[in-house]
Amino acid sequence: MNVRVLLEAVQEGRMTIAEAEKSLRDLAFEATPFAHIDHHRLLRRGFPEVVYCEGKTTQQSAEIFSRLALKNPNVLATRAEPEVFEAVKEQLPEATYDELARCIHLHRDQAVSGYGTILVVTAGTADLPVAREAYVTAEIMGNKTVLISDVGVSGIHRLLAYKETLQSAAVIIVVAGMEGALPSVVGGLVDCPVIAVPTSVGYGASFGGVAALLAMLNGCSSGMTVVNIDNGFGAAYAASLMNRKRP
Amino acid sequence: MNVRVLLEAVQEGRMTIAEAEKSLRDLAFEATPFAHIDHHRLLRRGFPEVVYCEGKTTQQSAEIFSRLALKNPNVLATRAEPEVFEAVKEQLPEATYDELARCIHLHRDQAVSGYGTILVVTAGTADLPVAREAYVTAEIMGNKTVLISDVGVSGIHRLLAYKETLQSAAVIIVVAGMEGALPSVVGGLVDCPVIAVPTSVGYGASFGGVAALLAMLNGCSSGMTVVNIDNGFGAAYAASLMNRKRP
Amino acid sequence: MNVRVLLEAVQEGRMTIAEAEKSLRDLAFEATPFAHIDHHRLLRRGFPEVVYCEGKTTQQSAEIFSRLALKNPNVLATRAEPEVFEAVKEQLPEATYDELARCIHLHRDQAVSGYGTILVVTAGTADLPVAREAYVTAEIMGNKTVLISDVGVSGIHRLLAYKETLQSAAVIIVVAGMEGALPSVVGGLVDCPVIAVPTSVGYGASFGGVAALLAMLNGCSSGMTVVNIDNGFGAAYAASLMNRKRP
Amino acid sequence: MNVRVLLEAVQEGRMTIAEAEKSLRDLAFEATPFAHIDHHRLLRRGFPEVVYCEGKTTQQSAEIFSRLALKNPNVLATRAEPEVFEAVKEQLPEATYDELARCIHLHRDQAVSGYGTILVVTAGTADLPVAREAYVTAEIMGNKTVLISDVGVSGIHRLLAYKETLQSAAVIIVVAGMEGALPSVVGGLVDCPVIAVPTSVGYGASFGGVAALLAMLNGCSSGMTVVNIDNGFGAAYAASLMNRKRP
Amino acid sequence: MNVRVLLEAVQEGRMTIAEAEKSLRDLAFEATPFAHIDHHRLLRRGFPEVVYCEGKTTQQSAEIFSRLALKNPNVLATRAEPEVFEAVKEQLPEATYDELARCIHLHRDQAVSGYGTILVVTAGTADLPVAREAYVTAEIMGNKTVLISDVGVSGIHRLLAYKETLQSAAVIIVVAGMEGALPSVVGGLVDCPVIAVPTSVGYGASFGGVAALLAMLNGCSSGMTVVNIDNGFGAAYAASLMNRKRP
Amino acid sequence: MNVRVLLEAVQEGRMTIAEAEKSLRDLAFEATPFAHIDHHRLLRRGFPEVVYCEGKTTQQSAEIFSRLALKNPNVLATRAEPEVFEAVKEQLPEATYDELARCIHLHRDQAVSGYGTILVVTAGTADLPVAREAYVTAEIMGNKTVLISDVGVSGIHRLLAYKETLQSAAVIIVVAGMEGALPSVVGGLVDCPVIAVPTSVGYGASFGGVAALLAMLNGCSSGMTVVNIDNGFGAAYAASLMNRKRP
Amino acid sequence: MNVRVLLEAVQEGRMTIAEAEKSLRDLAFEATPFAHIDHHRLLRRGFPEVVYCEGKTTQQSAEIFSRLALKNPNVLATRAEPEVFEAVKEQLPEATYDELARCIHLHRDQAVSGYGTILVVTAGTADLPVAREAYVTAEIMGNKTVLISDVGVSGIHRLLAYKETLQSAAVIIVVAGMEGALPSVVGGLVDCPVIAVPTSVGYGASFGGVAALLAMLNGCSSGMTVVNIDNGFGAAYAASLMNRKRP
Amino acid sequence: MNVRVLLEAVQEGRMTIAEAEKSLRDLAFEATPFAHIDHHRLLRRGFPEVVYCEGKTTQQSAEIFSRLALKNPNVLATRAEPEVFEAVKEQLPEATYDELARCIHLHRDQAVSGYGTILVVTAGTADLPVAREAYVTAEIMGNKTVLISDVGVSGIHRLLAYKETLQSAAVIIVVAGMEGALPSVVGGLVDCPVIAVPTSVGYGASFGGVAALLAMLNGCSSGMTVVNIDNGFGAAYAASLMNRKRP
Repeated sequence: MNVRVLLEAVQEGRMTIAEAEKSLRDLAFEATPFAHIDHHRLLRRGFPEVVYCEGKTTQQSAEIFSRLALKNPNVLATRAEPEVFEAVKEQLPEATYDELARCIHLHRDQAVSGYGTILVVTAGTADLPVAREAYVTAEIMGNKTVLISDVGVSGIHRLLAYKETLQSAAVIIVVAGMEGALPSVVGGLVDCPVIAVPTSVGYGASFGGVAALLAMLNGCSSGMTVVNIDNGFGAAYAASLMNRKRP
Repeated sequence: MNVRVLLEAVQEGRMTIAEAEKSLRDLAFEATPFAHIDHHRLLRRGFPEVVYCEGKTTQQSAEIFSRLALKNPNVLATRAEPEVFEAVKEQLPEATYDELARCIHLHRDQAVSGYGTILVVTAGTADLPVAREAYVTAEIMGNKTVLISDVGVSGIHRLLAYKETLQSAAVIIVVAGMEGALPSVVGGLVDCPVIAVPTSVGYGASFGGVAALLAMLNGCSSGMTVVNIDNGFGAAYAASLMNRKRP
Repeated sequence: MNVRVLLEAVQEGRMTIAEAEKSLRDLAFEATPFAHIDHHRLLRRGFPEVVYCEGKTTQQSAEIFSRLALKNPNVLATRAEPEVFEAVKEQLPEATYDELARCIHLHRDQAVSGYGTILVVTAGTADLPVAREAYVTAEIMGNKTVLISDVGVSGIHRLLAYKETLQSAAVIIVVAGMEGALPSVVGGLVDCPVIAVPTSVGYGASFGGVAALLAMLNGCSSGMTVVNIDNGFGAAYAASLMNRKRP
Repeated sequence: MNVRVLLEAVQEGRMTIAEAEKSLRDLAFEATPFAHIDHHRLLRRGFPEVVYCEGKTTQQSAEIFSRLALKNPNVLATRAEPEVFEAVKEQLPEATYDELARCIHLHRDQAVSGYGTILVVTAGTADLPVAREAYVTAEIMGNKTVLISDVGVSGIHRLLAYKETLQSAAVIIVVAGMEGALPSVVGGLVDCPVIAVPTSVGYGASFGGVAALLAMLNGCSSGMTVVNIDNGFGAAYAASLMNRKRP
Repeated sequence: MNVRVLLEAVQEGRMTIAEAEKSLRDLAFEATPFAHIDHHRLLRRGFPEVVYCEGKTTQQSAEIFSRLALKNPNVLATRAEPEVFEAVKEQLPEATYDELARCIHLHRDQAVSGYGTILVVTAGTADLPVAREAYVTAEIMGNKTVLISDVGVSGIHRLLAYKETLQSAAVIIVVAGMEGALPSVVGGLVDCPVIAVPTSVGYGASFGGVAALLAMLNGCSSGMTVVNIDNGFGAAYAASLMNRKRP
Repeated sequence: MNVRVLLEAVQEGRMTIAEAEKSLRDLAFEATPFAHIDHHRLLRRGFPEVVYCEGKTTQQSAEIFSRLALKNPNVLATRAEPEVFEAVKEQLPEATYDELARCIHLHRDQAVSGYGTILVVTAGTADLPVAREAYVTAEIMGNKTVLISDVGVSGIHRLLAYKETLQSAAVIIVVAGMEGALPSVVGGLVDCPVIAVPTSVGYGASFGGVAALLAMLNGCSSGMTVVNIDNGFGAAYAASLMNRKRP
Repeated sequence: MNVRVLLEAVQEGRMTIAEAEKSLRDLAFEATPFAHIDHHRLLRRGFPEVVYCEGKTTQQSAEIFSRLALKNPNVLATRAEPEVFEAVKEQLPEATYDELARCIHLHRDQAVSGYGTILVVTAGTADLPVAREAYVTAEIMGNKTVLISDVGVSGIHRLLAYKETLQSAAVIIVVAGMEGALPSVVGGLVDCPVIAVPTSVGYGASFGGVAALLAMLNGCSSGMTVVNIDNGFGAAYAASLMNRKRP
Repeated sequence: MNVRVLLEAVQEGRMTIAEAEKSLRDLAFEATPFAHIDHHRLLRRGFPEVVYCEGKTTQQSAEIFSRLALKNPNVLATRAEPEVFEAVKEQLPEATYDELARCIHLHRDQAVSGYGTILVVTAGTADLPVAREAYVTAEIMGNKTVLISDVGVSGIHRLLAYKETLQSAAVIIVVAGMEGALPSVVGGLVDCPVIAVPTSVGYGASFGGVAALLAMLNGCSSGMTVVNIDNGFGAAYAASLMNRKRP
């Protein structure tokens, strides 16, 4: 069904807004020679398609970003090299760049729509780039977000000093490389959902984050779920869905 | 600090209930020769310790189950062989056994405390044991739970027929073996958290569930998180935390 | 047996053309210091040997290309860096270069000899280089070829919008990285052969395409076969054999 | 859309048969408590859903088999233990069992509908169970099928003795364990599609068929595609699609 | 050099006892048809060769045990099935069997020769068999040994309750399966050597202990070393060497 | 070319015996329904085809053994369960069975045709079954063969005691599991070819022999080559080729 | 508890020094925006936190180094690129740099506090960088340290020439890549603890040190423990704990 | 024992030359700060130590090369970058460099001491660097050596054209990447030892040569042995030992 036809039906009262909204969730995308941009993801999933830049040319990334910016207040690009930002900025001077996180964000609608605080915790300083990607994502998706860095398990008193902060969060994202033990310890201290993000920090038998990933999948603290290695974005996206205000 | 001393302090007004609750979260466990039973997990995490039977003797499993039953209304044992159930039933005749899920449940407090519906979906019939473990767990943790089986991606119209059910769930647990593609498709259709559970269903290059696990970790639908292979329990525990009513 | 002797025998009627053709399939190659060029592959397999440039020096690649061009109307070089193209172009100015696909093609005989359409479909924009390699190969082997990009499973409506195109293809090549779920969904919608090509697109637990490869090998849609990671050429070659006109 | 409504539309001439057929491809399935049986796969894909018995209970397998037998002339069950056959035979006395292949087949419509011959070739005697699964599947799907066993590469003259048979086949399925070298050699000799099936035959560093699988994925003969380890069924299903008569 | 010659040299004063001892370290063993029993390991390494029973026949294991018992006060056999114990007991009625640890021990010299306490700690109840192997080994090698079970990281307060015990040990052996996080936490609390023993406890992505092994190898607490999966014996042997009294 | 035609040509002097022998190397095999028995391997490779029993039925193994016994003086079957031996013995009462090696051997021609001694050395007692397979194979192929067991590197003096035996061998087969270090040490002591055989002896991170296999492939002693895990037969076959008398 | 309060309590005699020391072990750290510096590790573990530079920016590494230098006599930074040293030297001119080991050391307190000698042994010349990291670490932690290079097992006489040195060490660190056989041989010769360090030296099937790591984990010499690939620092830290003088 | 003492004993008749030779095999090496050069390897193993340059500094490699050149007529360095050759050439102008093989050779004694021909065969052109390393090594070790390139199994007639050359070799080294099938085919055609060398040629699921390595380890042609990936040197060294003239 064509979108115009649908909107006319709504205008003329032959279709309720609820019905129209549901139909629209399935329908529309914008076809370019290299991508099918899914504009209605905002309707269907509550947040627009995000530009994942790896494997795309600078021009492709920038063009998708611009097209999304025409129809959405907030746009995010992850894994973006500085040259992608340069290209975006020419079109959208208000876009900003987080160098550590390698994210471009256009944050025009800064309303906080989430229910509680999303807390991002890292085991070490080297886990910061991934944690920043999570932080930036959670924030642009309308959440109050807090970041605590370098409280890994080899000095457990550093973590325990933040017990109250941990126990008052709505969702916790725990970012850790090497042996990936921190999420299990955090998970045992709180009663909110914990999302574990393994990072590729480490060497030798860390196998680019596999050791941390396996540890997290085998975590003995119930209630923990896991995302891909270095996937700070995915963790924050999932956390945002968990932190939604309920009707 | 001793629990009795603490409670007296509360009774005599020297300590508020909030302070007492916080203290109790850190303190107590019951030491047996083979286990440190964590009775206060109910307070700290909102649900008592669950008995994971694999690697424990029948007697150890049954004894831990009984001790937990003294202090908690509901108790769950997972990966329980029938002989464990026999041993438990002698002590607790009201306990029941779900053969497919290999779970023993003592479900004395049947109140529904969760916010919305937890939906468990499987790709194939062979994924049912894992899905049942998730179902039983979600239910005993106080959630309205629904199970749909065998709607894998090779006949996508079967899944699409349930689109409304999918879009009205609070949390969705997607259980799939083989190529593990179902969670990505489901994730693209809904705006609630999706937890993917890879199963060891398959052969050859499925490597006991590794193929499905990797597919899920690389899932292109944002908002999806993953648990260990065949970990129906863990998925449901996490879903319960996400489905909690908020203050 | 010498080729000249054979041809004389044919000329003089001592050998039928059918016999001669069969003999030739086994016989000839051209020995250089670094390669045994299999000129009669055109006879035996219906298409000349293709130059796979990786691991060969620029000079070796260019020389093999030129020698093949002496005896075959169409020649293809894959995984060719621009400098190989420079070297080839000096000898064969009519050769062209597809930068995205990294292919050099000499397409002198543009007749379409295949039976139906070979359709190349990608899950994401980043899968395009591999898809282009498949496209270029299928085309130079005499097939009508169509390419659709970025219709992955996280927005299933984008794929379903092309259902008719999918169902009218003779062979479909599905190119996907990350979780590699697209071929299973496509396979469930059509009744022609589907060739799945995993790509190295992804990060972390995608392990350079292994996650996609495993997903495809475990695909639950019957009738799907798989080629090596990033092997767009091999998929198209196989598709061409499947798309041959029958006697 | 409801099937009855659709058929009435056809009866009354408001819909052509072609339109109706296309609609039906997407619609129907039969819901049981444990499975969604896809009866219209016959329409959509040209062959009914096959019962893969592994991971299903005997009763589930037998019931799905029977339901399929009500609506389809031919039914196949793979990975079926003898007790499944016993259960099926009670309902369907004309069903037969291939012990080596572990397949139950109900072969009521024995018409040969395929275009040419599907040839199944094995490297060793121990590869026979997988090859038989392929043979049985190809045959029940309406193909002329031939099986040659034990012509592995360590005595290449055994294979070369069958060169004419190889070169006259429409599709070749090559089944090999251990080092999996046979498909590459066969692929170099013929110009029809070659489907390679790795088997779990071997020990030590064969890793349950992984060595053969990797060899086949890296096969240097163009035009070869691969299926999962021990997946004789999948290879034959794909071969049947390739061997279809064209309109 | 022959042992008798050496001893005569000592007797006649041509060689000091220190020189003789050093020579003997390299020399002697007892050849049987299936084994070269290394009797002088007691001299060279401070403890006799231990019988590792896996892969040996019952008779071979029992015979080696008996021969060692002729020349050494204490003998240990690990990975011993009950029938090996039966065979040993016939010859050596004073031998005892630890069923959980699967160890046979002949403990005739019960002197405590080690410097401090070796503490064995487990993460869960299912890790007990490996922990018992470590306990039995450390004890028979002359150490004061203590075992604490089930103090894993998901309830960190259970571990912290034993902080004093941990900080007063001479060497700590930490036994953990699943995510293997416990040794890192323990290592951060103490200043003695910590030996981490991964166990095969777990399922799915624990890969028979690999997840725990990798976590331990990547442990962020300095001073931790690791042994093979389930190698309780090796950990205790190493701990005994670390706990030796110094001259 | 037909064998009879060939032999007549020899008889009539139109072909020399050398030419005939060469032709025969490529030609003959005996086709059964399940195997292509390669009788002329004796001519081509100097020893008849060996029956590898794993994956074959008892009847298949016994029948191939018997057919080989009709045309060859010596026949060997490896990986043979006792019931295969029972079946063979009925037909060939002079066949014998080595239980440890799981080999059936028919050793009618006991001439020693090899040049020097093949020495088989094991690291531990548990490596004996593989070493015996090597021993039995080398012997039936006409070699003087010696076996030394349990001289692993943890007591290096045991190995050094055999230095002369090692240095006088023509070929050495070193059989070792666990860390697989023995072949490197042996290789550094001798100047004859060393064949390393990894065994599946070990547990945990030995991964069924992978640890030993990798160690051997990385062995720092030049001149060492490696065969598959537990492949005692293959090592001995290769050693026999190396030990051939030269013309 | 606050540190000042604690110290006053000590000053006023309400708390013994021993009690205060124990309390301090749990308490203090210094929070910066990117790290929680654990100053009291010196008290708790006997040596200050070490700066692991990989994954930290030059500025972060240098700043942490400087802060540690304010409160500790000796500071070590590992995996430090030359530019980190440049940054450190500006603040702390007495710091020195070991290029091979990539370590920065500030060695103000050169007292030898360890009990005996720590011996570092390498299999090959290419293992030197890792061995140097171990050497530098052991030395700065107050140990007499000796390094012997290139005594691998392919020329076993080179190792045996150092037998006395080996047998008089307090702890031995054995550094080896490729097949990792050296620690097993060393372990069999001595009665002190042996720490095996696999290195990433090798190619092909060494898999970046995995072959050596697995060999060491499976080492047949009892008493050996293992650290991560290339982790010279960790080995030396552990050795230092083992070499502590006892009260 | 000192070498001079030994030689005097020989001179004075107190020791036979045979005894002296044997003693020398165990004794001597030259200690430098970074290496223990094993000069007597020439005596012990028949060829001097070879310089493996990877992981050594240019200066270390060149110095070891020069020291070996003082005492040995022929010296070989493998994996040598051009700058190492520059450094060597300054000292030893007669040294030459094979760029493809990355080998430096000083070939002063060009006598052919081997028994027959060592044949090096490659599957493809890209395998040439490894094959050249084998060729150069075999030649400098005194063997008649022949190289045939690019006769892989996808055009089996190219290999069969060389059957006589194959069957007249003393030892064959088969170098192949990708699926590694060539050694099995060659092994089935000849009766001399075949050494298989997997190469890292390939992409995707070739995993840097692992696919070829596994295929070769599982090769069904008896008599084949395998070396590490890309180890042309090791294959040739082993082939030289097999090709030695016998006393």
